[in-house]
Amino acid sequence: MNNKQNAYKKRGVDYRSPATLLTLPREYYQSEAIYAEEVEKIFYKRWLFVCREEEIPEPGDFQTVAIGDESLIVVRDAQNKIQAHFNVCRHRGTRICKAEKGHFSSGVIQCPYHAWKYDLSGGLKAAPLLNDVADFEKTDYALFSAHVGIWGGFVFINLAEAPVPFEEEMGALMNRFEDWNLPDLRIAHKLEYKLKCNWKIILQNYQECYHCPGVHPMLSKRTPFRGAVHDCFEGAVIGGYMEMTERRGSMTMDGKAAAPPVCKVSGEDLQRVHYYSVFPNLLLTPHPDFVLYHRIRSVALDRIGNDCFFLVHPDVLADHKLMERFQSAVKFWDLTNQEDWQVCEQMQLGLKSHRFKRGRYSPFEDIAYAVDQEVLKALGHKPAEME
Amino acid sequence: MNNKQNAYKKRGVDYRSPATLLTLPREYYQSEAIYAEEVEKIFYKRWLFVCREEEIPEPGDFQTVAIGDESLIVVRDAQNKIQAHFNVCRHRGTRICKAEKGHFSSGVIQCPYHAWKYDLSGGLKAAPLLNDVADFEKTDYALFSAHVGIWGGFVFINLAEAPVPFEEEMGALMNRFEDWNLPDLRIAHKLEYKLKCNWKIILQNYQECYHCPGVHPMLSKRTPFRGAVHDCFEGAVIGGYMEMTERRGSMTMDGKAAAPPVCKVSGEDLQRVHYYSVFPNLLLTPHPDFVLYHRIRSVALDRIGNDCFFLVHPDVLADHKLMERFQSAVKFWDLTNQEDWQVCEQMQLGLKSHRFKRGRYSPFEDIAYAVDQEVLKALGHKPAEME
Amino acid sequence: MNNKQNAYKKRGVDYRSPATLLTLPREYYQSEAIYAEEVEKIFYKRWLFVCREEEIPEPGDFQTVAIGDESLIVVRDAQNKIQAHFNVCRHRGTRICKAEKGHFSSGVIQCPYHAWKYDLSGGLKAAPLLNDVADFEKTDYALFSAHVGIWGGFVFINLAEAPVPFEEEMGALMNRFEDWNLPDLRIAHKLEYKLKCNWKIILQNYQECYHCPGVHPMLSKRTPFRGAVHDCFEGAVIGGYMEMTERRGSMTMDGKAAAPPVCKVSGEDLQRVHYYSVFPNLLLTPHPDFVLYHRIRSVALDRIGNDCFFLVHPDVLADHKLMERFQSAVKFWDLTNQEDWQVCEQMQLGLKSHRFKRGRYSPFEDIAYAVDQEVLKALGHKPAEME
Repeated sequence: MNNKQNAYKKRGVDYRSPATLLTLPREYYQSEAIYAEEVEKIFYKRWLFVCREEEIPEPGDFQTVAIGDESLIVVRDAQNKIQAHFNVCRHRGTRICKAEKGHFSSGVIQCPYHAWKYDLSGGLKAAPLLNDVADFEKTDYALFSAHVGIWGGFVFINLAEAPVPFEEEMGALMNRFEDWNLPDLRIAHKLEYKLKCNWKIILQNYQECYHCPGVHPMLSKRTPFRGAVHDCFEGAVIGGYMEMTERRGSMTMDGKAAAPPVCKVSGEDLQRVHYYSVFPNLLLTPHPDFVLYHRIRSVALDRIGNDCFFLVHPDVLADHKLMERFQSAVKFWDLTNQEDWQVCEQMQLGLKSHRFKRGRYSPFEDIAYAVDQEVLKALGHKPAEME
Repeated sequence: MNNKQNAYKKRGVDYRSPATLLTLPREYYQSEAIYAEEVEKIFYKRWLFVCREEEIPEPGDFQTVAIGDESLIVVRDAQNKIQAHFNVCRHRGTRICKAEKGHFSSGVIQCPYHAWKYDLSGGLKAAPLLNDVADFEKTDYALFSAHVGIWGGFVFINLAEAPVPFEEEMGALMNRFEDWNLPDLRIAHKLEYKLKCNWKIILQNYQECYHCPGVHPMLSKRTPFRGAVHDCFEGAVIGGYMEMTERRGSMTMDGKAAAPPVCKVSGEDLQRVHYYSVFPNLLLTPHPDFVLYHRIRSVALDRIGNDCFFLVHPDVLADHKLMERFQSAVKFWDLTNQEDWQVCEQMQLGLKSHRFKRGRYSPFEDIAYAVDQEVLKALGHKPAEME
Repeated sequence: MNNKQNAYKKRGVDYRSPATLLTLPREYYQSEAIYAEEVEKIFYKRWLFVCREEEIPEPGDFQTVAIGDESLIVVRDAQNKIQAHFNVCRHRGTRICKAEKGHFSSGVIQCPYHAWKYDLSGGLKAAPLLNDVADFEKTDYALFSAHVGIWGGFVFINLAEAPVPFEEEMGALMNRFEDWNLPDLRIAHKLEYKLKCNWKIILQNYQECYHCPGVHPMLSKRTPFRGAVHDCFEGAVIGGYMEMTERRGSMTMDGKAAAPPVCKVSGEDLQRVHYYSVFPNLLLTPHPDFVLYHRIRSVALDRIGNDCFFLVHPDVLADHKLMERFQSAVKFWDLTNQEDWQVCEQMQLGLKSHRFKRGRYSPFEDIAYAVDQEVLKALGHKPAEME
């Protein structure tokens, strides 16, 4: 075994392909045509994370979500089930809800224009003066609906008519993180960012730590980048973990835990930060003492919204002293996020160059390469031709 | 006669087609290609309302008007005739006038770049140093002009080389509203709005009152929507009237008249508000005591300027007390306009959805359907295929 | 010889073609497709002026330059030679430098993302952890470079792989203005403008003074437009000079010299202002007492940045009193520039009109016509078809 193979082993990965891994051609970051294809084949067809169950706790509570040209109403119905409806009245196409979140009182979703009324499940309940009109059947005019899937308290929707089954897509996550009791955790903080870069750049950035020594001096002290171990290399869910240097530490300003371990987290997990991405828009980062997650909202070819949430145990949320200490984790990640956003935006700018065609990943970025392969597969482009 | 037919009769309309009336496909509100076609076939070919005669009272007075990519100078010439010239110098294409309105002194329209001079009728009067140049004939370099038509003090222009005769287009209006002495009325107030919606949405909104109960509680009290009577269903001019509930009332905050009846207005007209649209950009609303009109300026696929004017008899304008009372009409319509703009913008947003293809009009919106048919006819698209 | 020919002679030009000279069709100012072609065939292929040598005096000093979608680093290397590198890391395409200017310390150009290091000549010096990776040769990953040419202290770059030789392109300038000792002059002042017009409009405007009587009353007093003499009519460098009315005067608010004559300037040059454009983005205007130059940066079809610099002898720069007097030249040209920018923006607006196809140059604008021919030649469009 030579030195090179040794280096790979340290990362816990058996590299099947130490071969030349090329990055995606620059057009994947600059072409409006490819972006339109991504919207069509990825954002309109794949499972997208939209919100936490806790954010719409009561029947009638809703959030609206923008996906490409579509607006969706994610609402808890009268049976306490979460549903997702296209935010467009069947009468003349008016957008029904303007608010980002709210509550439909009396269980009625009403269009502001001609006052058509739908129930929370999307059924048309009243269309003024049309009761007696020939050929008009209310059942023909229910709101269009999208599929909903829930895992660990995370609500996903899928706009496709016949999507891949949710459990199949989440596969690698299904039996993971049970010690965290994810559905019981609660949002303790939210950081909102607007970035000038393509959505894929964020996923790639999340998945490799080759950039950490230069970009994240503090993070690199807590979790040296050579301690990265990846275990999911294919499909919608990919990721792994990093080892912390500090005993019972966490990703905070002083490196010490931000809170007691979450629920039943124990053993090796007390020493690890897990990094998983759910393609294409959830970054899930369980720590021993809290869970960080990012929701990526692609707004344009070179624009995203990136919302960063912190989940803690309800006991932490209820304890003023603990929450004060917890700010150390918020501050750490706000700094780290911003370090990343800078280079992500620089990459978007650099890829405008026509002289640069495509680059070459180092072996330490093979998982960013895996992100690219999932993109190509989703688009139906041939990865073979890409090398 | 069954119940349904009864309902129609109440609206004073003999419904020839109680059949399923479909709305325009969403592309008519979202496609840049269709919008470009509309600019070409509607805004560059049809009669467009631009201003009132009173706004350019003296020879040399002008207004500039933006229509698609074109800018026009509407000017009163030395013979007191209103003319319209393309605002572009024949020398090298410089836009001559920047100002929205003004006065050309000495009867000269002069380009600011190389000082070429035109008279108010567009003829090239002086091109410095070119007098002796071979092959240069001033008559070859007159400003391009557009056709002008005037009705009731309203000035229309038409950019087509050989437009449909003005009187033919105005047909249905020609013998109407003579009791108002429209040319003699004067602008008492102007409200300016910028809306984020397609221009057609405003015309449709203007033509139906099915939305009134939900959107306009105050207006609905003054003129219940079932009192709508339409009499023009085809062509450039369509519309009808609504009956007011209050004896000698008007559309004001308290429902009482804003001013004495205009000129010779009498009889049934004292009880009615008339609503006529002149395709594609004038909404004309004679009340017993004043005349409201909207000028729609399409700025982009999803952007319009909407200027709302109030005409009164000169005697009212001259009377401080009467003008104070008149503010009640201004306030009423400002509120009502804004109620409309909200839902019009919501409709534009909703129609971004690709899931929504097209909707279905209720029988109470058959006149909005008539607007759509005029659009399709102007574009040369087949209405038959649309159902 | 008739009157017309006489008029031409006054301008010192032997007009070979007093025939009808047509302007470029409006599409050359309005079509995104033609603009894309210009970026490709002109801005990515021709010699572009970027900065003065004095602006990056020490090894490691750099400026970044935006050209179309490209960003370039213009840097002085360890051997004191000026180089130009594409501002894009060969690893994954990240833009390396954000700053408009600065200094690379320790002779290292480092990418902020994964810390790859290049030397000032563009060679890859370090790619962390890739030393032992098979198939990875640093020499394969040097920064992409552009060609550099220097004349009179002006630094030009060329992004083409095999450009026309620099000296060939500069031909007409090579033996000109030696009396000014251009490389020794120093920047005394900079005026920055952002204009809403196509880049070609500025070149045309610079080359003709037919507009001067109307647009520049003060300039026309100093240099009557009939005193224009053009001597270069073809190629990248075109221009001529104008005679000043005032003995030992200059282009200042009071018409008197702004400073002593530059270096060895003498004789007829004491009475002349020279106007040369280096296609496509340098306007060079030597006066007896200073040198004015404009750098045009095309930002979009209808947007440019226009930076106006004043060069003086170092002795003037060092003398507080002389520099105070020199402000009279700055003020004169700031006023004159703004007079031009107004009409240039009006021309851009006017050319939006579809009714206007193309105009006709007067014989006094034959050199603006020459600019157009250079554009057509560069694009490979047939000038013959344009008339």
